[in-house]
Order: sequence, then C-alpha cells, then structure tokens
Amino acid sequence: MADTISFARGAPSLDIVDVEGLKASALAAFDRDPAGTTAYGTAVGYVPLRRWIAEKHGVDESHVLVTNGSMQADAFLFDELVGHGDDVVVEKPSYDRTLLGLRARGAEIHAVDLEPDGIDTAGLAALLSGGVRPKLAHIIPNFQNPAGYTLSLEKRRALLELAGEHGFTLFEDDPYIDIRFTGEELPTMLSLDDGTRVVYASSFSKTVCPGVRVGYLVGPPALIGKIATRATNTYIGPNMVAQSLVYDFCASGRIDASIATVKAALKDRCDALVAALREHLPEATFTPPEGGYFMWVALPEGTNVHELMREGAERGVVFVAGTDFLLEGGDNAMRLAYSGVTPAEITEGVKRLAEAYRAIA
Amino acid sequence: MADTISFARGAPSLDIVDVEGLKASALAAFDRDPAGTTAYGTAVGYVPLRRWIAEKHGVDESHVLVTNGSMQADAFLFDELVGHGDDVVVEKPSYDRTLLGLRARGAEIHAVDLEPDGIDTAGLAALLSGGVRPKLAHIIPNFQNPAGYTLSLEKRRALLELAGEHGFTLFEDDPYIDIRFTGEELPTMLSLDDGTRVVYASSFSKTVCPGVRVGYLVGPPALIGKIATRATNTYIGPNMVAQSLVYDFCASGRIDASIATVKAALKDRCDALVAALREHLPEATFTPPEGGYFMWVALPEGTNVHELMREGAERGVVFVAGTDFLLEGGDNAMRLAYSGVTPAEITEGVKRLAEAYRAIA
Repeated sequence: MADTISFARGAPSLDIVDVEGLKASALAAFDRDPAGTTAYGTAVGYVPLRRWIAEKHGVDESHVLVTNGSMQADAFLFDELVGHGDDVVVEKPSYDRTLLGLRARGAEIHAVDLEPDGIDTAGLAALLSGGVRPKLAHIIPNFQNPAGYTLSLEKRRALLELAGEHGFTLFEDDPYIDIRFTGEELPTMLSLDDGTRVVYASSFSKTVCPGVRVGYLVGPPALIGKIATRATNTYIGPNMVAQSLVYDFCASGRIDASIATVKAALKDRCDALVAALREHLPEATFTPPEGGYFMWVALPEGTNVHELMREGAERGVVFVAGTDFLLEGGDNAMRLAYSGVTPAEITEGVKRLAEAYRAIA
Repeated sequence: MADTISFARGAPSLDIVDVEGLKASALAAFDRDPAGTTAYGTAVGYVPLRRWIAEKHGVDESHVLVTNGSMQADAFLFDELVGHGDDVVVEKPSYDRTLLGLRARGAEIHAVDLEPDGIDTAGLAALLSGGVRPKLAHIIPNFQNPAGYTLSLEKRRALLELAGEHGFTLFEDDPYIDIRFTGEELPTMLSLDDGTRVVYASSFSKTVCPGVRVGYLVGPPALIGKIATRATNTYIGPNMVAQSLVYDFCASGRIDASIATVKAALKDRCDALVAALREHLPEATFTPPEGGYFMWVALPEGTNVHELMREGAERGVVFVAGTDFLLEGGDNAMRLAYSGVTPAEITEGVKRLAEAYRAIA
C-alpha cells in the first residue's frame, strides 16, 4: 500500500498500460516506415495515423490535425478562435486547465451549470437570449472532468441547434469516449453535425499512454488548415516517432486489447470507490460515472474542502478540491480520480478520507 | 538518381540515421523506466535527459527545459520575452522561421549583416549607440542557417560585452554545434557567460533524428521556471516516450557513433558541393562551412534567383532562394542544403544548376 493514496492524478496506473505492446509497436514503426518515422513530417501529423483517425470518425483526412497531445490542440484552437474579451461558454464545473487557458487569452467566461445529464441547455438558451454571443462553447460530453457526468443525446441535439442558431463553435472535448465501462454509447456531436458547427478533440493518452503525447482535432477543413499553419510555425511538425508508434498500436489492434484492459480496471476501481463511499462516508453525494477517470463528490453544505484536504493529507490521502474547477463555489466538493489507484488502495483511501471528514465535521 | 535533386530541405537523408540504434533505445527506454516513459511527466522534461543535458553544459538542472523540438523552445522564449513593438536583433540573413516567429509577435526587427566570421559586431555596436534597445539578439553561432558561417571567438566575447552593457538577452540558437566536420571547436557563449546574459537552445534533430522532436533551452533558472509554467499550460508535459528514447541513445553512447556517421557524410557532401560548384559553376561565390547542413551561394549581381529557381525546377533541381532569409535583398543568392543528398546527387544537381544558370545569364 502506498504511503499516500492519491485520488488527485487523472492518469492510469502503470499496470494498465500495455508496455510490451508499446515496445512491439515502436519496433514495428521503425521497421515499417523508417523514413516517415524519423523525418520532420508536416504539421498535420503522421499521414497514416491521420488517415486512421479520419476513418474512425468517418471524415475526410482534410478535417484532421494530429498534435502533441490534445491540450496542445486546445491551445492552437483557442489561439485561433478566442481573442481578448470574447465570450466563451464553459461547463460549471470544468477542467481547470481549460479555464486557465481561456483566462490567459482574456476570454469573457460564462460558466453554465453542469447537471448529471450534461450542461443545463435551458440555462444556456437563456444566456444566449439575453444577448451573450459566444465564439465557442467548451463541452466535455463523456464522463466529464471533473464531474464524471455524461451529456444526454437530447442535450447533444439541443446544443447543436443552439450553435447553429447563434453562430458559435461547439468545442467537443472528448478524451474519455473510448473508455466507457457501462451504459450505452452515444453519438458524438461531431457525427450529428453538418460539418460546420463542431470542432472535436480527442487523445490517445487514455487508450495508449499519456507519455506518448498524441492527441488530435477534427473540424472544418478551412479551420484545420489555419491551425496547421499555426502548428508549422510553432514546431514544424509534431512527434513522428510517437505518432508512427501510435499508428501501429491502432492498426495492429493492440489498442482494442488495451482499451478492454483499461475499461475492466476502471470499472473495478469505480465500483470500489462507490462501495467504499457508501460504507464509510455516507454523507457524500455523487452520481456514479459510466466511464472515464473521475467522480465529483459533494459533502454536506458548510464542509470546508480545504480543511478536509489538510486533514486528509495528514492521514495519507490526497484529492483535488472542487474549487479548482469553478470560477467561484465548490467549497464543499472534491474531484476523486480512481484511474491511478487499485481497489484495495481505494477502499483504504476512502477510510482515511472518512476519518479526515470526521475530524472536521 | 532521384528525379528531382533537392538542395532545399535542411534534413538528413535516411542512410545517416541510426534506425537500428533508435529501435534498441526505444526498447531500452520502456524496459529501464516503464513508468517514467509512459506517464505524463512534467513540463521541464524527462528528468534523466534533463540531467544529461545539464551535465553536458556544466550547469545545474534548474537551468534546463527539454521541449518538443527546439522551435517549440524558441516559441516559448519569444512568447516570454518579445512583445509587440519590442526591438530584436537578428542576423542578416537569418533562419526564415525565426523571422516569421518574431514578425508574428510584432517585434521591431533589426537585421545586422552577417560576415563569414559572424554578425558584424561593430555594426551592432553602432546600432546600440544609436539608441536601439533590443530585448533579444538572436544568434546562430555555428554553421549558421542559411549562411553556413561560424561566429569567431573574438566576436562571441564582443557580443557578451554588448549584451552586458546594453542589458539584452543573447539567444544562442545552436542546433548544429555537434556536427562540426572540420576546424576547431569554439566555446559556446553560454559557457563564457556569467549565467545572466545567454539563453541557449539546441536540439537532437541533427544528432538523433528530426522525427523524435526533442530540443532544449538552457538559461537563468528564473526565466526557465517561467517558461516551464508556460509549457505546463500549453501541453502539460513534452513527449516522455521520445525523451526517454533520446536519453538512452545518449547515455548508451549510440549518439557518439551517430554523430561520427553524420559528420563523415556531411564532410563528403560539402566537399562534393564545393568541388562541383568550382568545376561547373565558377561564377558562384561562397565560404565553405566547417559543419552543419548549409552553404550560402552568391551569383553575380543582377542574377534573378527566382528565374534561376524556375529554370532549375524544369531541370530537376531545387533550392531555397536567398530572399527567404532576408527582410529585403538576397535576389542573387541561394541556400544550398547538402545534408539530404549524396555526393553523386550533389554533382549531378550542380550540373543542372549550372545549366539553369546558363539559361538565364
């Protein structure tokens, strides 16, 4: 058992990374295409991987740009679309790094409540009727970070309608889609769109490994072309060694085995977390996620999450405070990541968390 | 023989890339440190590689940031130091992507003549005495791109003095240092500095391979810390798979064998280029470089390099026009890259170039 049990890091534990498969794919990459794997390449990404992604999403290759991780893709997109003072819609709560990136660009951030079935589309409609004209709405549709919630099909359609009506880009930020461990898959907004309203981002961090830093954007070719120019001017080309390796990992089918391993482990970990909370910390309220890495846990009103963090750290358990994911509020909430801890660690971690809670309640 | 012979691309040919060594290093990376190689890591880079680079340059690790290629490092540095309207000094001619990056940030660019022993330091001193207050001077000290010239020791010292006196940062952009194939090594300005005036950048593109996209900055820790924060907010961490691979390539000594291969090939290619020009295009004037990828070749005044490009392309030879590396001028000059072509291709390419020249002269 680790001295400190971390519910803080949104990352897989090493035991669910297919290291042997990565080695085999690295060798295959250099053997199959030594020139393409070792050369500069171009900013759109490693051509066979770009094609594989295009086929996966049923679009032409001209819609796809493969980047050094999907956060780099977000950064390019924000640089392209979001200027100082521009209105932008985010979910409340949302991913802390997204908020930081938007704030750094001087965006006027409008946070709209996230409900267990996704962003409050009626609230968003009211905001738009009130005259707010966003350039972009940032949505994490599946197993949202930090909440773990999933956007319903009905709300996916509603968002597309609002985007069409009010002329903003829907940024569908979807790194967790392939690691659903229960429930029914839902179509992406990208696939429901007419090809004009959605820019889609995803990543291989959760299905191959984070250290390989391969993510991508799918969007209208004109916009993708502009972002490719920006990428060329930033780094010439992304990492061809990594992208060629990922291509082999995908094309060989190793990714399917890896996804099966990851899903099974995440399901066990999530189940362990839910059971442990119900047993040891019944004051906690939450909606169990159907996939992904995270669960949002609220404690009774008046709980000071920063005191809880301090008490938790003393007992060897850490997590991220809800306040990190909100412009204001979140004082009685926390994000628990179950991706990097075993069921046994989870049970012990929740026991420690419950003790910490008793110490301040 | 290739249909088109390219003197345009500043990249190695595949035959001088150690693909077997890359494969061995990829396996070693995953075996030696599976956790560190597959995880997110942090923005300063893969810790063992960062340490290796720090030791190579005789500095503490806190001075080093490892990035996704050195152009990404340049971009971070420019974002940190260069604002709209800031004065910046560059060499004339200079690397086209550097000029583009500075222009995109709204810098006031002052181009100072490059001489065969480096930037005209007397001209720079006069510019500074005239009241220009640059934030940064961008210098490629060894086998400059595009000229192939090397900055003399005397001028290295003169630049450091000017930087100290006038309070600007010397950006020593040094990707070619390790591929000197003749003449005496010169100390870096970084090593001659007191640790306050120089930010140094280099890369493994020329010694490992470009597709691995690993570069780095060395500079004052406070500045490196600020750039690390910028890097975290852009992409969390750089590519750990690639950096762990490069670390193994370095630590195993494979890099030394690779550098020896590259140097020997570049020397042969450069010699072939010089001999072919002297034989077939005696109107050309140039200073043979002592390392690197490039040679700057001037043709008689009045030669129109764009006409020459057109005639050359028709005969199956391409290069980059001198005008690409200058804010103005360069109409009778070209950059010939000999890094990606064999001696036989070089001889044939120069014959075609000479024919093209005869067609317009």
